[in-house]
Amino acid sequence: MTSSLPASVDPQAIQEVLDGRWAHVRRDARENLRDPDFAPVYGETMQEARERVTRMAKKLADSGRVGLGFPKEYGGEDDSGGSVTSIEMLAFGDLSTMVKAGVQWGLFGGALQLLGTTRQHDRYLRDVMSFDLPGCFAMTETGHGSDVQQLRTTCTYDPATETFDLHTPHQAARKDYIGNAAKDGRMAIVFAQLISRGKNHGVHAWLVPIRTEDGTPCPGVTIGDDGAKAGLNGVDNGRLTFDHVQVPRDMLLDRYGQVAADGTYTSSIENETRRFFTMLGTLVRGRVSVGGAASSATKLALDIAVRYGDVRRQFAAPGDDREIVINDYLVHQRKLLPALAQTYALHFAQGELVSTMHDVQTAVHRDGEEIDEARQRELESRAAGLKVAQTWHATRTIQMCREACGGAGYLQENRLPHLKADTDVFTTFEGDNTVLLQLVAKGLLTGYRDTFGSLDGWGRIGFIADMVRETVLERTAARALIQRLVDAVPGRDDDVPMLDRGWQLKMFEFREKHALEGAIRRLRKNAATEGMAPFDMFNDVQDHVLKTAQTHIDRIVLESFVAGVDRTANPGARQLLDTLCDLYALATIEADKAWYLEHGQLTAGRAKLLTSTVNQLIKELRPHMITLVDAFAIPHEWKAARILDEETDRQEAMAARDADVRVEAEGSQASGGSATDMEVAPAQ
Amino acid sequence: MTSSLPASVDPQAIQEVLDGRWAHVRRDARENLRDPDFAPVYGETMQEARERVTRMAKKLADSGRVGLGFPKEYGGEDDSGGSVTSIEMLAFGDLSTMVKAGVQWGLFGGALQLLGTTRQHDRYLRDVMSFDLPGCFAMTETGHGSDVQQLRTTCTYDPATETFDLHTPHQAARKDYIGNAAKDGRMAIVFAQLISRGKNHGVHAWLVPIRTEDGTPCPGVTIGDDGAKAGLNGVDNGRLTFDHVQVPRDMLLDRYGQVAADGTYTSSIENETRRFFTMLGTLVRGRVSVGGAASSATKLALDIAVRYGDVRRQFAAPGDDREIVINDYLVHQRKLLPALAQTYALHFAQGELVSTMHDVQTAVHRDGEEIDEARQRELESRAAGLKVAQTWHATRTIQMCREACGGAGYLQENRLPHLKADTDVFTTFEGDNTVLLQLVAKGLLTGYRDTFGSLDGWGRIGFIADMVRETVLERTAARALIQRLVDAVPGRDDDVPMLDRGWQLKMFEFREKHALEGAIRRLRKNAATEGMAPFDMFNDVQDHVLKTAQTHIDRIVLESFVAGVDRTANPGARQLLDTLCDLYALATIEADKAWYLEHGQLTAGRAKLLTSTVNQLIKELRPHMITLVDAFAIPHEWKAARILDEETDRQEAMAARDADVRVEAEGSQASGGSATDMEVAPAQ
Repeated sequence: MTSSLPASVDPQAIQEVLDGRWAHVRRDARENLRDPDFAPVYGETMQEARERVTRMAKKLADSGRVGLGFPKEYGGEDDSGGSVTSIEMLAFGDLSTMVKAGVQWGLFGGALQLLGTTRQHDRYLRDVMSFDLPGCFAMTETGHGSDVQQLRTTCTYDPATETFDLHTPHQAARKDYIGNAAKDGRMAIVFAQLISRGKNHGVHAWLVPIRTEDGTPCPGVTIGDDGAKAGLNGVDNGRLTFDHVQVPRDMLLDRYGQVAADGTYTSSIENETRRFFTMLGTLVRGRVSVGGAASSATKLALDIAVRYGDVRRQFAAPGDDREIVINDYLVHQRKLLPALAQTYALHFAQGELVSTMHDVQTAVHRDGEEIDEARQRELESRAAGLKVAQTWHATRTIQMCREACGGAGYLQENRLPHLKADTDVFTTFEGDNTVLLQLVAKGLLTGYRDTFGSLDGWGRIGFIADMVRETVLERTAARALIQRLVDAVPGRDDDVPMLDRGWQLKMFEFREKHALEGAIRRLRKNAATEGMAPFDMFNDVQDHVLKTAQTHIDRIVLESFVAGVDRTANPGARQLLDTLCDLYALATIEADKAWYLEHGQLTAGRAKLLTSTVNQLIKELRPHMITLVDAFAIPHEWKAARILDEETDRQEAMAARDADVRVEAEGSQASGGSATDMEVAPAQ
Repeated sequence: MTSSLPASVDPQAIQEVLDGRWAHVRRDARENLRDPDFAPVYGETMQEARERVTRMAKKLADSGRVGLGFPKEYGGEDDSGGSVTSIEMLAFGDLSTMVKAGVQWGLFGGALQLLGTTRQHDRYLRDVMSFDLPGCFAMTETGHGSDVQQLRTTCTYDPATETFDLHTPHQAARKDYIGNAAKDGRMAIVFAQLISRGKNHGVHAWLVPIRTEDGTPCPGVTIGDDGAKAGLNGVDNGRLTFDHVQVPRDMLLDRYGQVAADGTYTSSIENETRRFFTMLGTLVRGRVSVGGAASSATKLALDIAVRYGDVRRQFAAPGDDREIVINDYLVHQRKLLPALAQTYALHFAQGELVSTMHDVQTAVHRDGEEIDEARQRELESRAAGLKVAQTWHATRTIQMCREACGGAGYLQENRLPHLKADTDVFTTFEGDNTVLLQLVAKGLLTGYRDTFGSLDGWGRIGFIADMVRETVLERTAARALIQRLVDAVPGRDDDVPMLDRGWQLKMFEFREKHALEGAIRRLRKNAATEGMAPFDMFNDVQDHVLKTAQTHIDRIVLESFVAGVDRTANPGARQLLDTLCDLYALATIEADKAWYLEHGQLTAGRAKLLTSTVNQLIKELRPHMITLVDAFAIPHEWKAARILDEETDRQEAMAARDADVRVEAEGSQASGGSATDMEVAPAQ
């Protein structure tokens, strides 16, 4: 197999493809937010970190760049996608600053914008945008993080006083892990069970003052501090407890549910669960932002590890004097390159998600259209799936990069420790990944159920029972192109070259379809089993169900990468991305070889060919590793990794002096160290 | 398949098996080192952490418990195995303290003990033991961590002055990441190229004063600070640079190589490479300690996650009011239980390794026997393999435990952040894991080569060309038992029950043998390929070679677990461990299902049966999760996880109040939250 890749490709050509629909936002950030102030600082105390991040938030507000997602009438740009993109760019810098910004303008400001009404916007939105009104998003409770329908905080209306009584009935109901709470927040959007005239109307949100301007907690409000965390210590996470706090009626964020002066509850959405999930659905931007931010952190980690690996040398080949650059070792390449390929794949998937989110939200919130329920649910499912994929990918990849940089990767000054510690919680907040996978799976099952008939005994399985769904394997991007590629694959798969894109897509599709059908079959069987408890019916199949969700996510990610390659005009860049896409597809199949072998989609011979093809792709891509990270175009000021500054100088100096230093050791030629003879010693 | 496990098993019965040969050391630590002083402290500055750890080191020294491995004549106990066991116990507490102790008494003291001679012991050993003489182990250089034969620091003898000139020729040669260097160390054992009479005799070690009693660096010595690290910030890692420092001749640690006054070099080991590796081999105890410490950290993480999972509730099953304990979810069990099984397996393997190390070292260093080269190489290979296995297992498992504890796992007060950050570097120091795997592989190849004939063109591949090795799949523990089990498996594997221990062992053996033979075949082929560069001959097969090493480690670990079960007298404990061993074996096979399917060792049908058998084992073991962590017998004072104190009280209070709080939401019965209907909301 001869390589068809050019000797070198201009990273700029790739960068243009990556920059995507909001390229102007990325360019603006690179040019105007290069300020080293936005880089992380090492060795701070928690207090210093918090103070610095508060200053940075103010600095961001003053830059006028935080308002992208807010309505034009308040000084924003109605640009939901731009807002997420700016968070992704911010995530190349200090992640505490990025999270602080996300809390203030994404969660607090976003909830105000999307759940509140005009009079509330008029009163508060500008101050939120300017950071003159720091605020919190108080949903999570100590006892309930994932199952938010079961929040225990109550807010009970009293028509006599036209106020709500906001109350934390016990410790497990306290709001917990709330960013902006421990130090800065002056108001909080608090989620609680709305009770009026003896009836619970489900979870709603109120705007509640928590701290006066001089920093004292408001009456009835107790503010606690979560203390030091593993990372993100520039974010002041805290706890909020309410002791019969009186909240005026007009502080209910009442876009979707209203309470009249006499306590009568009204809503345009009758079904309570649907109403709740509609409200939550508007907040999908937070989840989309976390996924994108995770990918930025991943890109930075790879940038550091790839550059380090291109200059770091250890062990000489037999007969050579020059030690080998570690990026030349197959096993090292096998760590970095598939991760780089998956990072590119996720980038394209994220780009489409942001674009879809923007269009959906703009239609509803700017243009006043009716919510398209199907599109909204699909968006939420996609957001959940890509949040899971990008955050787990970040955790794994950043760990791998730390190890790939050895002892240097363990020093704070080289950035990787911060990336590790800060991103760790991304797999938990904005939705625990395992629970989110279940959400994705449910969407697939619901779709199947509605298309192919009910699952007996599973009336509960859809929260929106009357939705009509398209055929299960709904294609995402570049539908026509992908359909053509898949259709072109001959029936007999055994002879199709593994670099055939249609074959790759078919393999992903087959796996998803088969996993889904298998999950359905097993659920039906359990549903029909006498004496089986409802919990066990589902629990018994939980691993299979989550696997199904995973395969679905893999497929939509591949489709996005295919679409991205298709959009690439520059020939050299297109070839490189095409080869990288091959690596993503084949490495993903290789990682799940067991499934394909078990289901007759690979013979033993093809399985071996798969591994050697992956190795061959890695060999072809190796010379382009630096180009692939260059294309991320991360401003040097944000990297804050000392090793990137030192390394080149050091290695050149070392190489120059090697000749002086190396006195031939007695007998070393016959038995000295070599790259195949790698003995190691206990290293301190 | 009905469960044969008793309803409950006494954790004490399991603990006795786990405590092993050095049970008295473990008991002593539990009873006498319960001091909360040895627990980690959260929210310290680096300076506070260093000061605390220095105090703790002194406290340990005063307890008299650090001298176990040192000779009796100096107040020790000649107890190498006891010394490692005490490090394992210390690793349940603050890991910075454990590493500090390991540096002072394991590396610095150990090198002095095993590379030095009596007159040096007489002068320094007691002060090392009392911590009156804090010291460093200065081997690693900025430019050379893994390839220690290529250290650049030189030490050149001048007969006229009878001193050595110790010199750092350039920055990459500076000693780096040296524990005890930045603050406390007054002497360092420095590794450098010994040059005398114009000849380089390879790497040796000298005892070199680096700091006077008042803290000033000695003449010619520059001491740098590595600064803040990801974790282990109580350890003062630093850099040492030597500018023509004069070192008296008698400061050469000269057990294995001597320099006479006139500069004549002598050694009982002629071959330089063998001499070097013999010296390094004595230091195997450090590597064995790191593996064991990693396992202690893993056990603690699992202890926290399992207990948390047994009280934390989220989502209710359809029709139920009580929310489900998260340990009851299959997917949650699938995270925790296989990890627990592997932890037990590694514990038994570590026990045998420590035992072997103790016997080998005692024979040589206490009883003065000749080094048994084959046994020594096998010990080093085993130590390398188990260091890799235990440290990567720790990294993966601690991450999983952090995620399993959600937001609570991200708070420093709940211990997991510290465990993560502190153990991260264990995969790098004492040997980078990838390089160590290569060492293990080389041992297997060397053995093969010597048994079955040379690998043409690979004269370099063995550093000890004339070693005779036993048959490749040398059994480790309980040889006779394992042989019987394997022999009893009928030829036709398809019908053998998966719970047949002999079948499980055969599957592990087959995989190792086949991988090894495949690696050899490919290496031979490359060696015979015209025009292929020597580096590429090996690099091309590197992934296969490392896979081979991995399969070898898996097998020896399983054999150790089998032997451990066999030693268990208490019937209930024996059954439980036997079932846990089944889970370890089958989960390991399941994780590599692809390989087994590809090589015809599993049919598609057997592969499915494998997964359902694993799920069934998990179901049987679920009720015993707490017992399995109780058996680790980790003193509560060392856990320093606030959630373990709070959780029970909180959940009981919450359950009691649920009835009061829960006003029936309108329509909630028909469409409320359920464990199968897991919608999630963006959580802060």
